[in-house]
Amino acid sequence: MPDIKIVTDQAVAAQIKAILCAWGMVEPALSITARVLLWADLRGIDSHGISMIASSYRRMRDAGVLNFTPRLETVVDLPAIATIDGDGGLGHYPSVTAMELAIGKCRHTGLASVAVRNSNHYGAAGYYACMAAEAGLIGISMTGVHVAATVPTFGAEPRFGTNPIAFAAPAGRNPPFVLDMATSTVAIGKLVLAARAGKQLPAGWALDEQGRELTDPQRARALRRLTPLGGTRDLGSHKGYGLAMMVDILCSTLSGAAFAPARPPFEPGQPYDVGHFFLVLDPGAFRDKAGFVDDLDAMIDCLHATKRADPAQPVLVAGDPEAATERQRRTEGIPLSSVLVDELRDIARAANAEFTL
Amino acid sequence: MPDIKIVTDQAVAAQIKAILCAWGMVEPALSITARVLLWADLRGIDSHGISMIASSYRRMRDAGVLNFTPRLETVVDLPAIATIDGDGGLGHYPSVTAMELAIGKCRHTGLASVAVRNSNHYGAAGYYACMAAEAGLIGISMTGVHVAATVPTFGAEPRFGTNPIAFAAPAGRNPPFVLDMATSTVAIGKLVLAARAGKQLPAGWALDEQGRELTDPQRARALRRLTPLGGTRDLGSHKGYGLAMMVDILCSTLSGAAFAPARPPFEPGQPYDVGHFFLVLDPGAFRDKAGFVDDLDAMIDCLHATKRADPAQPVLVAGDPEAATERQRRTEGIPLSSVLVDELRDIARAANAEFTL
Repeated sequence: MPDIKIVTDQAVAAQIKAILCAWGMVEPALSITARVLLWADLRGIDSHGISMIASSYRRMRDAGVLNFTPRLETVVDLPAIATIDGDGGLGHYPSVTAMELAIGKCRHTGLASVAVRNSNHYGAAGYYACMAAEAGLIGISMTGVHVAATVPTFGAEPRFGTNPIAFAAPAGRNPPFVLDMATSTVAIGKLVLAARAGKQLPAGWALDEQGRELTDPQRARALRRLTPLGGTRDLGSHKGYGLAMMVDILCSTLSGAAFAPARPPFEPGQPYDVGHFFLVLDPGAFRDKAGFVDDLDAMIDCLHATKRADPAQPVLVAGDPEAATERQRRTEGIPLSSVLVDELRDIARAANAEFTL
Repeated sequence: MPDIKIVTDQAVAAQIKAILCAWGMVEPALSITARVLLWADLRGIDSHGISMIASSYRRMRDAGVLNFTPRLETVVDLPAIATIDGDGGLGHYPSVTAMELAIGKCRHTGLASVAVRNSNHYGAAGYYACMAAEAGLIGISMTGVHVAATVPTFGAEPRFGTNPIAFAAPAGRNPPFVLDMATSTVAIGKLVLAARAGKQLPAGWALDEQGRELTDPQRARALRRLTPLGGTRDLGSHKGYGLAMMVDILCSTLSGAAFAPARPPFEPGQPYDVGHFFLVLDPGAFRDKAGFVDDLDAMIDCLHATKRADPAQPVLVAGDPEAATERQRRTEGIPLSSVLVDELRDIARAANAEFTL
């Protein structure tokens, strides 16, 4: 494949750090941001890895949105709860800090929640949920999004971001259960891929300016109006809409961050004020921990053993494809498109940063 | 409408209590169960009100599944967490007890969670979330289901119940936000209604024994194989599947209750061992409470003001239709189908209970 370059995980991490460092980011944010983005690349969540620098973070930096030397402030600190102000930086650093804080609190209280406001894009939602699972805990991670793309049921204009929900739970002999899903039917990335391939969209992915179903991939890509999960009213889009609003209540309203459509018109230097929500539960506080792990393993095994609709396609459990991709990429390297590599080379050059790919 | 009888809320509550009392249920379970079922009838969630007695509880009672004199046991009691054993009774009594306990704990800790095991059907999931919202708190309520009906993506046999998620948050000038949704695309009740009306199902509601799309309403009703929210893989059924599994992990695995497909074959007197999950968060612990309420009111107003796809159909917020129905039914009474009234008359007669409808 001539348009793919295989690079090592070290090279990806070094490239992320070189560019962000040249943009003025300092430790510990630098290493944390690189770690979270690299994780997405390793897990095959390519839209949320190093590509974010080219697709989004560069533009936000150029617009003066991002504070590269944020000083996090813990504005509320109770035994089981905290609220962190991200000081307008990228979201990975306050979010890792929030999840570490929640995990620490959870060791004493059995459950804990940390809200983050005045933040920005935090990468893949699943990373933070997995931090809890790696600590033997159940983790939940959600985020608001600074730009509205998802149209409420019966509506004709966007009100929510893709507002993801991530949930991870620790198993024993199986990898953890890791759900990481947008509450829109598909992400913007799927419209872009369909537009590139010139393929009509399935009805229920995107809408036009009047809120009608749109299957033309070029127009859908330009309009960026997504349906909530369910796609159509008949198939339950009001449920996806309700989940998207739940995510915004927990991320924006609970933390005191901005709700995207209610945000004042953008001005340079004005923060996006994105909010995140994190929750951690200790199964060992509710029941014997070993029993929880055994029962989750049994549930996962039961699902893998489910009779198949197509003998060639096994029934998967959330997190299975990403775990398989991670095993492969850790040994064989990470494939990046040549287009992305070229963009990153240009960005590195413009920033006077080393090019490591 | 000759096949509809309008009855008062008092008559409905009295009928529920008369039958359950004749079956051996005692206080406080009796009043609590009647209150939860009546709430569903008032809110227009007709499938989860008094009709449950005819459609499900009678059969469970006859099969010897239900303990009508349960002694709840709080098997774990920590400052922010508890686990309750429901002793094999209907789910309403342990669930109200669990939510009251969580609300009380939340007053001290800012968030609290209570898990319930060894329970049964608990009525409408939204009731418990609304208990928190009425107390000025955010409430989450989920439940497992004793019989599997939802088929995982790529699968050809059911693994989950309709596994609902309810989430409620308190507003100020608006009614609370109340999301109460099955994680299947539709509930079994919709298949029954379509079968009665002889209408073909939309593709994506139901599956056949091979996991293929099924649009014949009679076969779908008989087979009872639902899709996860999303309906098809293209429209994101793997997300609904993931949410259904998340609900079962929180309700069954966390509490130590049974996972439906892993339950041993039913024997009379053997409990279904259904689990529930409750979580309460105090917005006033994360930020100023008034700010939360103002921001949620602004979000709700913003959604109501969303440009409409159809000028005649306003954009709704989760809980709006049920709040409107409740206002109407509290003054005008509750419509019950004559078929249901006749069934309840027969059940009352067989139980030597008063007939109050």
